[in-house]
Amino acid sequence: MSKIKTALISVHDKDKLQTILKVFRKYKIKIISSGGTFKKIKELGYQSIKLSEFTNFPELLDGRVKTLHPKIHAGILSKKDNIKHTKEMKNSGIQKIDLVIVNFYPFEETIKKTNNFNKIIENIDIGGPTLVRAAAKNHDRVTIIYSKNDYEALISELKKNKGCTSLKFRRDMAEKAFLNTAFYDTSISNYFTKLSKNYFPEKKIISGEKIDDLRYGENPHQKAAIYSYSGQDLDIIQLSGKKLSFNNFNDIYSALSISSSLPKNTGTVIVKHSNPCGVSAVKNKLESFNLAFMCDPVSAFGGIVSCNFKINEKIASQINKTFFEIIIGKGFDNKAIKILKRKKNLRLIDSRSFKTNQVIDIKSNFNNFLLQNIDLDSSSNNFKVVSKIKPSKDTLKNLIFTFNVCKHVKSNAIVLSKNYSTVGIGSGQSSRIDSCKISIDKMNKIDNLEKFSKMRRSELCAASDAFFPFVDNLEKLSLAGVTAIIQPSGSIRDKEIINFANKLGLVLVFSKKRYFKH
Amino acid sequence: MSKIKTALISVHDKDKLQTILKVFRKYKIKIISSGGTFKKIKELGYQSIKLSEFTNFPELLDGRVKTLHPKIHAGILSKKDNIKHTKEMKNSGIQKIDLVIVNFYPFEETIKKTNNFNKIIENIDIGGPTLVRAAAKNHDRVTIIYSKNDYEALISELKKNKGCTSLKFRRDMAEKAFLNTAFYDTSISNYFTKLSKNYFPEKKIISGEKIDDLRYGENPHQKAAIYSYSGQDLDIIQLSGKKLSFNNFNDIYSALSISSSLPKNTGTVIVKHSNPCGVSAVKNKLESFNLAFMCDPVSAFGGIVSCNFKINEKIASQINKTFFEIIIGKGFDNKAIKILKRKKNLRLIDSRSFKTNQVIDIKSNFNNFLLQNIDLDSSSNNFKVVSKIKPSKDTLKNLIFTFNVCKHVKSNAIVLSKNYSTVGIGSGQSSRIDSCKISIDKMNKIDNLEKFSKMRRSELCAASDAFFPFVDNLEKLSLAGVTAIIQPSGSIRDKEIINFANKLGLVLVFSKKRYFKH
Repeated sequence: MSKIKTALISVHDKDKLQTILKVFRKYKIKIISSGGTFKKIKELGYQSIKLSEFTNFPELLDGRVKTLHPKIHAGILSKKDNIKHTKEMKNSGIQKIDLVIVNFYPFEETIKKTNNFNKIIENIDIGGPTLVRAAAKNHDRVTIIYSKNDYEALISELKKNKGCTSLKFRRDMAEKAFLNTAFYDTSISNYFTKLSKNYFPEKKIISGEKIDDLRYGENPHQKAAIYSYSGQDLDIIQLSGKKLSFNNFNDIYSALSISSSLPKNTGTVIVKHSNPCGVSAVKNKLESFNLAFMCDPVSAFGGIVSCNFKINEKIASQINKTFFEIIIGKGFDNKAIKILKRKKNLRLIDSRSFKTNQVIDIKSNFNNFLLQNIDLDSSSNNFKVVSKIKPSKDTLKNLIFTFNVCKHVKSNAIVLSKNYSTVGIGSGQSSRIDSCKISIDKMNKIDNLEKFSKMRRSELCAASDAFFPFVDNLEKLSLAGVTAIIQPSGSIRDKEIINFANKLGLVLVFSKKRYFKH
Repeated sequence: MSKIKTALISVHDKDKLQTILKVFRKYKIKIISSGGTFKKIKELGYQSIKLSEFTNFPELLDGRVKTLHPKIHAGILSKKDNIKHTKEMKNSGIQKIDLVIVNFYPFEETIKKTNNFNKIIENIDIGGPTLVRAAAKNHDRVTIIYSKNDYEALISELKKNKGCTSLKFRRDMAEKAFLNTAFYDTSISNYFTKLSKNYFPEKKIISGEKIDDLRYGENPHQKAAIYSYSGQDLDIIQLSGKKLSFNNFNDIYSALSISSSLPKNTGTVIVKHSNPCGVSAVKNKLESFNLAFMCDPVSAFGGIVSCNFKINEKIASQINKTFFEIIIGKGFDNKAIKILKRKKNLRLIDSRSFKTNQVIDIKSNFNNFLLQNIDLDSSSNNFKVVSKIKPSKDTLKNLIFTFNVCKHVKSNAIVLSKNYSTVGIGSGQSSRIDSCKISIDKMNKIDNLEKFSKMRRSELCAASDAFFPFVDNLEKLSLAGVTAIIQPSGSIRDKEIINFANKLGLVLVFSKKRYFKH
């Protein structure tokens, strides 16, 4: 137990100070404070000693140098029960400080509000983190309170122990303190590396604030939580339904990354196990849902539907005919919400504030992690027609749609489509020819594919996420009715592939970029 | 440009000091130092002013309080060209400091060397980070050098600018400084959260030191690097071959996570696109390689082979008959290395120091990330025979082997095996029945499956990573010759599934845990 006799308070956020001051008076705790905190304490009707009187040294440089004084830091850092330290303190006339309550200049809030470099730099706190770190280091004797959210815990600790704190409490608070100094400097560091565009520095620090603990992880025996990168809120809003799980979040963002790549306010995506099982980008909303669903109704069962538009009554009624886990919309009509809410567990997600500004990807491998950026700039992809037969404008657009979907399918990926709607998706195979086969099998399962007149008239397009190593894939696809193919270039057999496509009378388009996704 | 007149040096690592002292003398830079640094400078034949003389205040508490003095921090923090600051400095008799060279008590090295809590806490530096942060904040005027690796850059900067430093240089060094203070406190914070087993704190900070920049990421248009978690080296050693790529690392760790789950020094795993395409855990080394390869030779082409044992001459010769990208072994015989090195590009990896102690998994989704722990404790999985027909001891062991492989296959996953060797792997499908079909198709492609007498005598086992939703899967597997099935329980139709298995005369085993992998 450590008796609290003297407390140093230096807080930027002066909210809730009253609650602790009342308790301090009860336990006759002496307070040292400065500047704004000193004024606030006085206003609230309590007394404190001015820091400059305590140190006998004036505040310097507009408050840049206040607490950085040996009397303060020896007061915090002197060890418990250390005879030498006690003697030195006595000789130098330094008093012990037992409790430090500090929070920092609002650096994170400042960078959100302004781009003014000088203002941002001025909000890097130097004295505050030093006090917090010193007190946390010496938690064997000193209590450190970083956040007003811990005032209540401090008060009940003091009450429980008659003005003392326990080592357990001090240790817990020290842990929080270092977490917060680390987080604070991470925000500063990330600000600098962002300015200099140094995305892969010699040391990399990734930080997040917890949004929520999750019931479990990818599987029930795994613990999990979701974090937002420093200072950013979750960009989707849940309107109704059961709490989102780890796999739900994973699937939602898989779906949204496809939806956000479709033309504005157009198209429907259905995802299952983080792979798309149906995508349509036709302009009519209801038709886009129906076509996306038609692609693989078995897989779509229990899946996630992402509509890249506001969901209306008509679509809601159609959606409700099938069991889905999650419906994502760019907003919902009131009537649509009413219809969908009839299914109590169904999760409804408003995706209007979804953003793709943070574009790093992390893969952790036990003792190391792989870091890569995500390239969302599809404009830098060049498409080149390499076959003798040239595609119509519509077929070329359809090929590019097909390739775009293919990017989001787990490798090796083959996607078949007609009329801006997938009709067969082959995913997750270690051999490309197997993915071709799966996509064809899926297409052949579709009932009455030709019932939509536009489907009938559209060419059957195929896309591959990486180049075809051999001509056998083209043969297989051609036999299944494919007439136009898009694939990245780069094989040593590119020429052979082109010749073979010409022999079969296929349209062949090469993309510049490959899109493995594992 | 900022002229350097006065430098403060306080370094724990005193290596290479000589190189800068020489240059400082040339430009008549005054030095302030203390303790060990003061002594070292004297030893090297240079002069410096004692910090306690500069502040006119004694060093306190065994060095815990040295540099935390307003004269030092006003000296660092006073703004450039600020009349008020200049006046205050003059009135208080404080001199400006233009350059700060500081490194910290070796916290990270200490936690690696000892578990002594007091020793570890004593190695939390308070004064050092404060100096670095103050100087970096005021980089408009002050130069901060954190690492001896930047001495050369400082020297050439001073030479280029005749004793001055440029704003660009000071900014770059400030960026490095904050990266290092953030990293230092992250190490401290992670130490505390590890002690308290607080794996999902309100703020999460993940840090790593760069091992290497990679040529590119998952695809050529993505930049990437590999980082080791704080203070840990890469745990695999490359012996030969081309530089490892992003996808190589990904595949290597996929392979190693399977290999490390097999019996000690037993078994071969072949991985392609981060999915296994052949696993065998039979005891004979060569046979295990042959059986793993037999499972899917088309996929294995260009894949990664991980032998969970020392690779000998015989196996090396057999491996060399096929084109692989990477061979991983628990060491290699000299003769084996000689044989494998004949293929110049082939990457050889020694995995003897591979460890699985860091067990967090991160999935980044644009603005947020999902964090989960990985459960490597397979002992907590209960297997329960639920069918009327009971499996032989060997069949039960084979079923558990099959289920264990299935954990590592992308969902939905179905694995077929005989005699501790996979014969069909269905992966990455959004519908479970499709994965069944794929695994059966793969098995049926195997030439002469029964050429090994042990394969002939072993029951055909099937594993599913999650429960079967309907009985159709069992029917399909049974028709293909499967006689024993293992799957997690948890469906509302579990009873129906058991009855159906009994009707078909199948062995059915329920596992407690599900293993989705997306």
